[in-house]
Amino acid sequence: MDEAQKATIEESDTGRVEAFSDGVFAVAITLLALDLQVPHPSANHSARELAAALAREWPSYVAFVTSFFTVLIMWVSHHGFFKLIHRTSARLLFVNGYVLMMTTAVPFATSLVTQYLRLPGAKMACAVYGGTFVLISLGFSLLLRTVVSDAGTRKPDVTRETLDCVRKSWRLGPPLYALATVGAFVSPYVTIGICTGLWVYWAGTAREF
Amino acid sequence: MDEAQKATIEESDTGRVEAFSDGVFAVAITLLALDLQVPHPSANHSARELAAALAREWPSYVAFVTSFFTVLIMWVSHHGFFKLIHRTSARLLFVNGYVLMMTTAVPFATSLVTQYLRLPGAKMACAVYGGTFVLISLGFSLLLRTVVSDAGTRKPDVTRETLDCVRKSWRLGPPLYALATVGAFVSPYVTIGICTGLWVYWAGTAREF
Amino acid sequence: MDEAQKATIEESDTGRVEAFSDGVFAVAITLLALDLQVPHPSANHSARELAAALAREWPSYVAFVTSFFTVLIMWVSHHGFFKLIHRTSARLLFVNGYVLMMTTAVPFATSLVTQYLRLPGAKMACAVYGGTFVLISLGFSLLLRTVVSDAGTRKPDVTRETLDCVRKSWRLGPPLYALATVGAFVSPYVTIGICTGLWVYWAGTAREF
Amino acid sequence: MDEAQKATIEESDTGRVEAFSDGVFAVAITLLALDLQVPHPSANHSARELAAALAREWPSYVAFVTSFFTVLIMWVSHHGFFKLIHRTSARLLFVNGYVLMMTTAVPFATSLVTQYLRLPGAKMACAVYGGTFVLISLGFSLLLRTVVSDAGTRKPDVTRETLDCVRKSWRLGPPLYALATVGAFVSPYVTIGICTGLWVYWAGTAREF
Repeated sequence: MDEAQKATIEESDTGRVEAFSDGVFAVAITLLALDLQVPHPSANHSARELAAALAREWPSYVAFVTSFFTVLIMWVSHHGFFKLIHRTSARLLFVNGYVLMMTTAVPFATSLVTQYLRLPGAKMACAVYGGTFVLISLGFSLLLRTVVSDAGTRKPDVTRETLDCVRKSWRLGPPLYALATVGAFVSPYVTIGICTGLWVYWAGTAREF
Repeated sequence: MDEAQKATIEESDTGRVEAFSDGVFAVAITLLALDLQVPHPSANHSARELAAALAREWPSYVAFVTSFFTVLIMWVSHHGFFKLIHRTSARLLFVNGYVLMMTTAVPFATSLVTQYLRLPGAKMACAVYGGTFVLISLGFSLLLRTVVSDAGTRKPDVTRETLDCVRKSWRLGPPLYALATVGAFVSPYVTIGICTGLWVYWAGTAREF
Repeated sequence: MDEAQKATIEESDTGRVEAFSDGVFAVAITLLALDLQVPHPSANHSARELAAALAREWPSYVAFVTSFFTVLIMWVSHHGFFKLIHRTSARLLFVNGYVLMMTTAVPFATSLVTQYLRLPGAKMACAVYGGTFVLISLGFSLLLRTVVSDAGTRKPDVTRETLDCVRKSWRLGPPLYALATVGAFVSPYVTIGICTGLWVYWAGTAREF
Repeated sequence: MDEAQKATIEESDTGRVEAFSDGVFAVAITLLALDLQVPHPSANHSARELAAALAREWPSYVAFVTSFFTVLIMWVSHHGFFKLIHRTSARLLFVNGYVLMMTTAVPFATSLVTQYLRLPGAKMACAVYGGTFVLISLGFSLLLRTVVSDAGTRKPDVTRETLDCVRKSWRLGPPLYALATVGAFVSPYVTIGICTGLWVYWAGTAREF
């Protein structure tokens, strides 16, 4: 990609990057529902037995809700982040790509947890789940660092204070998700608890946006 | 998320929330078609036998059409709702997230019905289907309550009368879907009848929008 | 849905309907690729044998290309159609919903053809494929009729001549797809030939749009 | 499609083509993650054994990352390309459709590689993978040729130099992907190496866009 093309692209707004990111977030968040499995149809299942079979799938529902709202919070943060900038750079585009890639892996990590939660492999499954979010939250930190280091990409009216505020709120992610990852080896429920707690906290503190 | 970031986001329009919601609705509505199953290919199937095998799948087609138009009506209502507001709030964003989450579960509930409709578990499957829409219609009520209680989010020209009209039209949802849920234990066809009736009614009364 | 809400919605442009439709078209067209099946991995497959296994899947590739370009042409026509209007109506919204619903069924019909093309059920599979497009092309005719009968929805500068031109070009669809459906009982290749011929023709005549 | 309709469409901007393309890219890139398979749950799997089972899946992860960033680079190039034009033509629309069609086949080609990488069919699987990108990069060349030959579609301020720059950067694609295809028969790792090298190179040289 050469100077001339770079120039052409440089002057672009961030609209199409946001549209593409929204598309990836929307597809990834919807694919989470593919993990809700219909119990294998059996001619012997009475209504009561089907209810019991569905009830036994509760880890799917917990994981579905937690992953859905976590991806939703990520989308909200992503949205808030793009409000800070008015220009993309190649570096930003690829860091953003990395965040999107890890986001598309969330349904896989979620499926791993729901399928292994009541098997001996549960601790490892939850560690992978936590680890996925460590990698995502590091991606968000990188996004922010890109904007901090390159004043040209951010809007002129974005103050250093605003950036500090965003950074402060995002700073919770990597260490707490790391704790959720390590904590999986104590109990899978430590991971689920921390991950659920985090999105409830973020949802609760984000009073008006 | 801090004051400064909140301020940045607060001034945003509702465009990206609508784009994201449209994406989720579009993916969820298209995934309904994954429930249309190709009969297992058999070298012995004559054309006539394949036709019979496809005909036996009629519950899939009824459920597909009913779910598709129900989600379409939901999207239309969602669209109409966002016409009332010009600003999002954290609360609205999460209520909207809840509505979207339940929407992505519609293909699962639909699949449950089509796979169990002619088995003893049919009543429970239909109750889950009805229950999913109870939860969705309650989400829509919550969306409306958010806007009623927070004048700052709605457009200045939206009168209380308009809000009352929307509320009146949406009020049908929760009780009738609850009836469809309970009615499943009388017969699965009560559920399908009420759910189909509701979208036909909404489609018929929505003469110009 | 009441008068007040109707009024609110009526004044809207067609942007969000197009965005939603684009989303459904984009997801449906991409799901066609799910029908490209990886041959079941076998430790005994040499490179040559894998090549042969892939080559045996040629009906998948033909059906994939034909369905992809047919849906693409449909999207182009849809796009062209929405250039004619500046306002939606409830009727238009639901006819559009019907077109989208049938579009999401195209991957199912395509899968039916690829799985049965070399089995005795091929004629029936191709008849279903042709029939799906009959239903879609009738939906497009209905879209046009909606605009012809309701002058309020179309842009002021759209002349009756333009409408006639669009109608003339779309008029080919229903009878030729009906022929493709009936022709399936002569030979499945009649269906594939007509369907492929139609999109090549439409692509060829649409010189500048 | 007749003159009048053509005229109507001709005056359109490229917005909806970009939106549709973004949708297809977003869905296709997200479907890559469906290839990340959860190891078949086994009650005997200890955490350690699950970790080993996941580790054995490393070809999936390499292929996932390579395909994801390759599609991302393709999307970036596509984005850059549409910055050059302000009008679409039928020819451009169909060449674009071809590029999108091949893009939706990338998850299939990726799946082929991950499932066969450690089986005797690996060379053929990698040749198909490389071949898919040969076909895509030829599509991009065709896109460019369309704009070069039709001055009416490109923006007035796009100079021949800009076009030459884009062409120079894209020219690497076809021969190197062809090499990756042929090289598969030497070793599958030649294919993976070249394909990974190419997106790293394109990402590295695209400093600001």
